[in-house]
Amino acid sequence: MVKSLEELGQKAARAKYEVQRLGTEEKNKALAAVAENLTARQDMILAANAIDVKNGEDKGMSSGLLDRLKLTEDRIAGMAEGLMQIVKLPDPIGEVLETFQRPNGLFIEKKRVPMGVIGIIYESRPNVTADAFGLCFKSGNAVILKGGSDAIHSNKAIMDVIREALENSGVTPDAILMIEAVDRTVTQEFMRMKEYVDVLIPRGGAGLIRSVVENSTIPVIETGTGNCHIYVDESADLEKAIPIIINAKTQRVGVCNACESLVVHKAVKEKLLPALAEKLMEKNVEIRGDEQVQQVIDCIPAAEEDYGTEYLDYIISMKTVSGLDEAIAHINKYNTKHSEAIITENAENAERFLNEVDAACVYVNASTRFTDGFEFGFGAEIGISTQKLHARGPMGLRELTSYKYTIKGNGQIRG
Amino acid sequence: MVKSLEELGQKAARAKYEVQRLGTEEKNKALAAVAENLTARQDMILAANAIDVKNGEDKGMSSGLLDRLKLTEDRIAGMAEGLMQIVKLPDPIGEVLETFQRPNGLFIEKKRVPMGVIGIIYESRPNVTADAFGLCFKSGNAVILKGGSDAIHSNKAIMDVIREALENSGVTPDAILMIEAVDRTVTQEFMRMKEYVDVLIPRGGAGLIRSVVENSTIPVIETGTGNCHIYVDESADLEKAIPIIINAKTQRVGVCNACESLVVHKAVKEKLLPALAEKLMEKNVEIRGDEQVQQVIDCIPAAEEDYGTEYLDYIISMKTVSGLDEAIAHINKYNTKHSEAIITENAENAERFLNEVDAACVYVNASTRFTDGFEFGFGAEIGISTQKLHARGPMGLRELTSYKYTIKGNGQIRG
Repeated sequence: MVKSLEELGQKAARAKYEVQRLGTEEKNKALAAVAENLTARQDMILAANAIDVKNGEDKGMSSGLLDRLKLTEDRIAGMAEGLMQIVKLPDPIGEVLETFQRPNGLFIEKKRVPMGVIGIIYESRPNVTADAFGLCFKSGNAVILKGGSDAIHSNKAIMDVIREALENSGVTPDAILMIEAVDRTVTQEFMRMKEYVDVLIPRGGAGLIRSVVENSTIPVIETGTGNCHIYVDESADLEKAIPIIINAKTQRVGVCNACESLVVHKAVKEKLLPALAEKLMEKNVEIRGDEQVQQVIDCIPAAEEDYGTEYLDYIISMKTVSGLDEAIAHINKYNTKHSEAIITENAENAERFLNEVDAACVYVNASTRFTDGFEFGFGAEIGISTQKLHARGPMGLRELTSYKYTIKGNGQIRG
Repeated sequence: MVKSLEELGQKAARAKYEVQRLGTEEKNKALAAVAENLTARQDMILAANAIDVKNGEDKGMSSGLLDRLKLTEDRIAGMAEGLMQIVKLPDPIGEVLETFQRPNGLFIEKKRVPMGVIGIIYESRPNVTADAFGLCFKSGNAVILKGGSDAIHSNKAIMDVIREALENSGVTPDAILMIEAVDRTVTQEFMRMKEYVDVLIPRGGAGLIRSVVENSTIPVIETGTGNCHIYVDESADLEKAIPIIINAKTQRVGVCNACESLVVHKAVKEKLLPALAEKLMEKNVEIRGDEQVQQVIDCIPAAEEDYGTEYLDYIISMKTVSGLDEAIAHINKYNTKHSEAIITENAENAERFLNEVDAACVYVNASTRFTDGFEFGFGAEIGISTQKLHARGPMGLRELTSYKYTIKGNGQIRG
């Protein structure tokens, strides 16, 4: 391991015990001090950000990426506000999940504890730096961040401001550590720091996530990719269906819980599709449909790979099916286990869809856009998990914790 | 992917939905039928096992490994009994973990669901074949097994007997599938069947587990390695300490929850060590101690690497410390996050040890040998998790499940 990573790991290993011991009050005070310092030091952060933005412009970064990269006073205020929202959330640490006494007198408690050290690998969105720190810290963890190299000056400035506030609050500044090297081999080594990092969470596009899954020896939580479907059943109320589809597709196209594909029962295609297509056209959504869809509306023919594509754009694929079984099979074949919805007035079909579709969040008669920590009432989230191990769906503070068993005896030995 | 694996994956993908839909009654009936068939077909299993044992003898397998490999009528009866114990355990599937209604009227339920397809990689212990199937099946999962090549005839015979009983019970036999190829590259590819396998659990020695962690792109649950310590505090009751240490070290030396290292407060070394060493010597346990230990008893000098070694043998390392802080730091440096114990009459020290030692199971005044699904009252277990993601400590049926959110609305869209 390169020396800088080894040192970082050792710092995190010491810091995690300090963070773990902090009480709720101490953590909240420190978070409030960090929020305050972000605003107090915004000129320094904006100056650092200006360097990143200038470098981005010089290398011809797209306007979308530049927009994600750019900080403003408002965005810094948003980061501070995000931390204050985390202050208000209940502290998950110390919660007793179960207690039981064994016949031999052993008293066993299952208690919620921090993970220890959480690693976050993310792209060039500097606001993630403050968010990720806040969530990891409140849940009692130390965090090692590896942000996109295009945001390195911004991220470093934000980290310095956080560390300063922590130190002034009497908390170890090593609760937040950052890998500043932009060298790819360092990132590769980071993903193998199993001795020091308990869980690794990639936040970003499909390519980043794939790379982390392929290379990490640290347990990973996969987040993000969402090839989400809406299935309009034979018995659907079209007054519900159309607004839900429009909302799920167009309210924000670049997010993981946006609808990418419509599955339509062939019995409703004539009633649904013309009216729906009109609304979608108003929003400039391109439709890629199968043969039966093409018979009813003007659209681009869908290729097989359309059904497996997360467009994150003003495009929707459409597929007709002859019943619920075919709809469920199609969705389970192509989905990314994120969010799926059925529009139906048939309670039995709703129940079967809820049970048999394999996804973190399965909806009846509602937009897939609700898969979100705030919408679920969890508060801020670190991401949406699309794997089944550990956490599924929106991951808030509780999902950043583990548990341990404590066992009290008075001399018990095993016979 | 080699064709045979692709086909296996597709079979598992179909089977998982069938297994998931089975009710508790259907699963229990099928498990009972499997248990019965194991006994009914024991001659066939024993004949297959005889081939493996003969091959093992011919290649000079050690007596320990041959003993693990060998099946007898009694051992087959034990496998059947294990399945009947799983029948009696409560079905975890369908349990509603939480329900909440959002201000917009969305009704959210968090429900326990199967993982889907569980992969198990294990060494040449044919009894794992039936155990692992039983636990995965009762928790609603399909399972793909990859056992040690030395047990291939036994494993295949057991699988055939299980499949026959499933089929006779009207359950898809593909609830259990096996990778029969003994080629290492097939195992490597299996660990990358992310599309088809939801979680991979290695059962075996440290080398097997390391190889799976290094190579798998499927989420892994690490099990097994246990470098477990007992710390004898200044205030320890030596009447408790000595029996607990002897039990944890010698009741069964080859298991992961056996004690490998003793940490002793220097204030009690004179009182504890001579009496303890005498008992350990009676059991032929070799002691490797630091300088202070060597001053009190005859022993082999401990090298630094002794503190990091899981002996799984009649050997114990001993280290003196000057207080609780040093003991906790030493344990957190060398342990494998499995099971750790303190012997103390000081309630404050006990509490600090329970909170600050980073392990799945932390004990006060009891033997580490209790870390076990049966001893915890969970019933049969698939292993002891030493990671913090998803499950920690003994993993029973619940730990082989995930959850999903189901959300019922009446037309809600996101504003």
